[in-house]
Amino acid sequence: MIKISDITEMRRLALSWRQKGLKTVLVPTMGFFHQGHLSLMDMARSLGQKVVVSLFVNPAQFGPAEDLDKYPRDIERDVRLAEQHGVDCIFIPDASDIYNAQHQTWIEVTEVSRGLCGASRPGHFRGVATVVAKLFNIVQPDMAVFGEKDFQQLQVIRTMVRDLDIPVEIKSHPTVREPDGLAMSSRNSYLSPEERKTAVCLFRAIQLARKMIADGERNRETVVKRLYELIHSYKDAKVDYIFLGDPETLAENSHISPPALLALAVYVNRTRLIDNCIISAD
Amino acid sequence: MIKISDITEMRRLALSWRQKGLKTVLVPTMGFFHQGHLSLMDMARSLGQKVVVSLFVNPAQFGPAEDLDKYPRDIERDVRLAEQHGVDCIFIPDASDIYNAQHQTWIEVTEVSRGLCGASRPGHFRGVATVVAKLFNIVQPDMAVFGEKDFQQLQVIRTMVRDLDIPVEIKSHPTVREPDGLAMSSRNSYLSPEERKTAVCLFRAIQLARKMIADGERNRETVVKRLYELIHSYKDAKVDYIFLGDPETLAENSHISPPALLALAVYVNRTRLIDNCIISAD
Repeated sequence: MIKISDITEMRRLALSWRQKGLKTVLVPTMGFFHQGHLSLMDMARSLGQKVVVSLFVNPAQFGPAEDLDKYPRDIERDVRLAEQHGVDCIFIPDASDIYNAQHQTWIEVTEVSRGLCGASRPGHFRGVATVVAKLFNIVQPDMAVFGEKDFQQLQVIRTMVRDLDIPVEIKSHPTVREPDGLAMSSRNSYLSPEERKTAVCLFRAIQLARKMIADGERNRETVVKRLYELIHSYKDAKVDYIFLGDPETLAENSHISPPALLALAVYVNRTRLIDNCIISAD
Repeated sequence: MIKISDITEMRRLALSWRQKGLKTVLVPTMGFFHQGHLSLMDMARSLGQKVVVSLFVNPAQFGPAEDLDKYPRDIERDVRLAEQHGVDCIFIPDASDIYNAQHQTWIEVTEVSRGLCGASRPGHFRGVATVVAKLFNIVQPDMAVFGEKDFQQLQVIRTMVRDLDIPVEIKSHPTVREPDGLAMSSRNSYLSPEERKTAVCLFRAIQLARKMIADGERNRETVVKRLYELIHSYKDAKVDYIFLGDPETLAENSHISPPALLALAVYVNRTRLIDNCIISAD
C-alpha cells in the first residue's frame, strides 16, 4: 500500500492508473476506522481495480464549538487496517494543503442541506460538499463509496454530483451496527461505559418507529412524540432532532407515506450521535 | 465539426478523445461570436489537439432585471464561424438539461466575486462559477481559454480552479478591440450609431489613466475623479463603477501601486459595457 500526503503526488498516481484503464474507487474518511469504514473499503475493493482511502479530518465541516480538536485519531492503526483490507493507496493530506491561506470557494447544496444535521450544524454540509468535490478532483475516481449512517451527507453528495455533472458514480453501504444495534461511529469512543448503555436508545427508537408504522400508524406527530418519550426515558439522553419524512427531498409532512426516512440525532451528555433508517410500509 | 446538444453525448465524445491521449481545449462562450471569441478559438486550436466550443446563454448569471431574453443570438452564423476556425465540436446544451428542475447546488467564490461587477450584479459570479464547473465536468478538458475583457470573471475562475483542485489549466487571451479602441463585445450590438460613438469613452478612460500613472500620479481618488469627469462628458454615458486596485485580490487602496488593474463598467443609455487593463509603472 502506498501512503501519500502530497496532493500533486496523489493526482499523478491516480492519473497513471486511469491511463492504464484501471477503475479507481475512492473511500473518503475522517479516519479512526471501525467496522463501518472497513466495510466501505471491502465494498470498494469489490467494485474496482484500485482503491484509494482518503483520511482527512476536515476542519471546514466542524463548527467553532464542535469537536474538531478532540476528534479521535490513530493514523498508525488506520494505515495498518487499510493495508489489511487491500487498499492500494491511503491519502492523508495536510489541512494547510487542502485549504490554502486564500481559500474562498465553497459549494452549497441548498435544499437538502437545510434541515436535520444542517439545522443543528450550520455550514457543516458546505464543508462536506467542498472537501468531497476537492477529493474527487484530486483523485478523479470512477466511483466513491459512502456509508448510509450519514444519510443526509449521502443525499448532499448525490445532489451535488447530479447538479454539477461530476463524473463519479456514488455507491452507498448500509450502516454497520454493534450487536445491540448501536450504529458504529468514531464518536462512540467518547462514551463512558454508562453512556454506552444509554446510546442504544437511538436504535430502540428506530425499532419503535418501525413497529408503529408496520402497525398502521401514519400520523407523524404521534410517532415522533413516542420516540421523544422513549429517548428521554434513558439517562442523560437528549434529542437534538427527530426527522420523519421523504428520503429524497428531506421534506416532512404530517402524514407518513412509506418508504419514509427516520433520522435522529441524540446527545448522550456531550456526545452527539446520529442514526437513521428507511421504513417501508410493512 | 460535430454539433452536440446532449450532455451524455458530449461527455462520451470528450472521453473517447481523452482515452486516445488527445489534449482537449474548451472555449466556454455565450455565442454571438465576434473577433474576440474567434481569437479564443484560434488560441485553443494552437494549444491542443481537440477544440470544444460551448455555446450557452447561462440564465443563472443574469439578474431578474437583466438582458437574458434580449441577449443577441445567431446560432447558425456561430456554427459556421466555429467551423471556419477549426473547432472540432460545438456544444449547445438546452437550459433545461443544464439546470434540472431540482437544481440546488451553487459554487460561491466569495472574496474576488464581491466588488466590481459582483457588486452591480448580485449572484452573477455564482452563476458563472457554477456553469463553468459543470462544463469542466462534462467536457473534462485539459485546458480552457477565457478572454481578459471579463477580467473579474477570469479571476473568479482561476480562484475556483485553485481552491477546488479542478484539473483544468486556465489560459487567457488579451481583449480584442475595434480600430477606435472599443473592446469587442456581443453587447455592442445593442448600440445605436450615436451610442457607438459614446462607447469609446471606456477606452479613452483607460488611456487617460495610463497617462496619469505614467506621469507619476499615485493617488487613486485623483485618477478616478478625472475618469468620472471624462466619461460623464460623453453624451448618455453613466459610470456604474470604476475600480483601480490590485489585479490579484481585487482590493482597492488609496495609493496606486503598479501593476494596477483599472476596470470599469459604464452604461451607455441602457447598455452596460465593461473594459479593463493592467497598468504598469511606466
